[in-house]
Amino acid sequence: MKKNTAKRNETQMGELKIVGSYVSDHFGELWDKSLNDLIKETVLGVLKSVSKSSDFDPEEIEAVYIANMASGLFNNQLHLNAVVSQLFNHFPPSIRVEGACASGSLALIAAQDALNSGRFKTVLVLGVEKMTDLSSNEATKVLSSASDYNFEYGSTFPALYALLAKAHMHKYGTTRDQLSSVSVKNHRHALDNSKAHFKKLFTLEQVNKSAMVADPLRLLDCSPVSDGASAVILSTKKNSGKISYKNKPKIIGFGHAQDSLDLASRKSLTSLSATKNAAKIAFKQAGITPKDIKVAEVHDCFTIAEILAIEDLGFFKKGAGGQATLDGETTFGGKIVINPSGGLKACGHPVGATGVKQVAYLAELLEFGSEKSKNMIGKYALTHNVGGSGATVVVHILEK
Amino acid sequence: MKKNTAKRNETQMGELKIVGSYVSDHFGELWDKSLNDLIKETVLGVLKSVSKSSDFDPEEIEAVYIANMASGLFNNQLHLNAVVSQLFNHFPPSIRVEGACASGSLALIAAQDALNSGRFKTVLVLGVEKMTDLSSNEATKVLSSASDYNFEYGSTFPALYALLAKAHMHKYGTTRDQLSSVSVKNHRHALDNSKAHFKKLFTLEQVNKSAMVADPLRLLDCSPVSDGASAVILSTKKNSGKISYKNKPKIIGFGHAQDSLDLASRKSLTSLSATKNAAKIAFKQAGITPKDIKVAEVHDCFTIAEILAIEDLGFFKKGAGGQATLDGETTFGGKIVINPSGGLKACGHPVGATGVKQVAYLAELLEFGSEKSKNMIGKYALTHNVGGSGATVVVHILEK
Repeated sequence: MKKNTAKRNETQMGELKIVGSYVSDHFGELWDKSLNDLIKETVLGVLKSVSKSSDFDPEEIEAVYIANMASGLFNNQLHLNAVVSQLFNHFPPSIRVEGACASGSLALIAAQDALNSGRFKTVLVLGVEKMTDLSSNEATKVLSSASDYNFEYGSTFPALYALLAKAHMHKYGTTRDQLSSVSVKNHRHALDNSKAHFKKLFTLEQVNKSAMVADPLRLLDCSPVSDGASAVILSTKKNSGKISYKNKPKIIGFGHAQDSLDLASRKSLTSLSATKNAAKIAFKQAGITPKDIKVAEVHDCFTIAEILAIEDLGFFKKGAGGQATLDGETTFGGKIVINPSGGLKACGHPVGATGVKQVAYLAELLEFGSEKSKNMIGKYALTHNVGGSGATVVVHILEK
Repeated sequence: MKKNTAKRNETQMGELKIVGSYVSDHFGELWDKSLNDLIKETVLGVLKSVSKSSDFDPEEIEAVYIANMASGLFNNQLHLNAVVSQLFNHFPPSIRVEGACASGSLALIAAQDALNSGRFKTVLVLGVEKMTDLSSNEATKVLSSASDYNFEYGSTFPALYALLAKAHMHKYGTTRDQLSSVSVKNHRHALDNSKAHFKKLFTLEQVNKSAMVADPLRLLDCSPVSDGASAVILSTKKNSGKISYKNKPKIIGFGHAQDSLDLASRKSLTSLSATKNAAKIAFKQAGITPKDIKVAEVHDCFTIAEILAIEDLGFFKKGAGGQATLDGETTFGGKIVINPSGGLKACGHPVGATGVKQVAYLAELLEFGSEKSKNMIGKYALTHNVGGSGATVVVHILEK
């Protein structure tokens, strides 16, 4: 396969590299931090990630893209682009992007377009969500604004994903233990992530017996309501002396696809067609195949979502994702490491931050590696970020 | 001055033209239309604006950018990008952009970047706000989420712009009659705009005596709470046979600048520095000066805002904007026509739609002209879209 756009841009203006990254310390119920605190911490953190190795000047940040789903509903604050710009003396131009839980990766795409157009050379992308200013019940209602208000009114996301789980279990025989194995594995991975919301091991039996939320999904099938933020600095500059470009991962492909907002209009409930379509575009642009990927952060807002993802992304045959997870094929020592950060389930899911955090986490893993990842993760990494029940999907492919 | 980026892109991939446009019928309190109704009407309307002159295929729309400020708070519906994508059989990738009342022009910029990067050749940009599902009081509270929640809590936008008006009156002697003349002129202009929210003449005396909202701003100084939507189709294709490119206006420059979210941190209250900075970038890119502009749609959310705008954009000397308006210099027969549509004041201000409507209206005026505009508006047109009290400003320059 050919590298098309990515290749063209490389020759025009240098590769699109992830030169800095930061994840807020940590994801969780951060009662002592405000939305603005999280934004400030993360801007300073990502600037420091660049400047520690050189004399980076914040004025080199030519623009800021901020991803957030629902600060209007959670925090009475819209116009977040202005909130982040004013942290800089030079007030860089800034845009907020929203696409429900896919906001983070959509902001990355908007930033990539600006870089690839030649308008900017270095930009900052920040994702944030401060969810715990409301109660869990209120937060669940806010999140339901990402479903179809006209046709799915009253449905919460656990209920919508429960439908997908039931359909998958019916068609492919996916079991309770298989669902639970996603949760067990992701909680285990999170033990090695200092930024994770949860750092606690669970057994299959504990997940199997956790409180029912929406049959068949139980509490430990569901990602939590988290506060958190994450940022990356993207640049198409060649080595300028001020930013270190050595060993920085690059974005070599991305795909973005849509589907109907409501489940009732879908052709299938056992596959997210937008995942398939986004992956197809991303793999084509990157010039690689699913076999080349040894590590991925996928959108496991519910355990069933991870099983759908690893099938629809082409890592496992349709219907085989649950058993593969139970068999240990999606952890260190298996065929591919899925959600080494702990994923949305255990690292946490501050919705606007998630898509950016996936890229930030894998960029750091590609650059610095980890004890467990040695000789395991290879040259490439993939992120998969979903809005709603699969109406919006973005896939990014990174190269070491 | 040189045309830099625009010029570069022209040679790369054809000019960036506005090949279709539509404004929902009409702006106003549309009790019988839902948010989704407005989106659907406007997508169909803008597609028809392209297809009436050729056999345009909706599949040529490669992506959609949707601008909206607060559908989460107004309508319990986020994830609007998915709402608009599903109107197409081919589900184009879509992104929602928000920057308070500047959402529309920011969505245009995101779309322009994608076009200029070469990723797409033809995209649709839609702005929408359905505000009257809430009461006026509730809507005013929603809008205040565009100010600084931490430092300006409790301030509504009439109160914030009243501070700007007081400062301008104090420093430059701007008068009550001068403020009122903005409103009188914009209501007069709206009489010729079939899509306008208000079609009613007011006298200076009527504006002067309208109910006080926030001293010195009275009811007829304030733009209304409106429902509405607008869309344009942008394309960098050269004539393809399917889209008519003949006589279509092009975007030859744009600028985007930021300032502090709160007024207290500003260096001046009698000028919006973000307007000056955005205009400087746009004029430089377009290779023209304010003298070349004979028609502009500026962000008159309040009468004082139009006076600030026509000064900061370089059309009138600082402090001279009020008298120029009272003298008839900003209407047909004067030095420059400001807000021929009626502006936010009289055409209406469905916030997410406004920035797109400004460009849609002027694109139609440049292409088709009007009885009054003959021999008046020249070759260029300018739009000026403001978020909050001037924290975000975008300026676009169009050429016939």
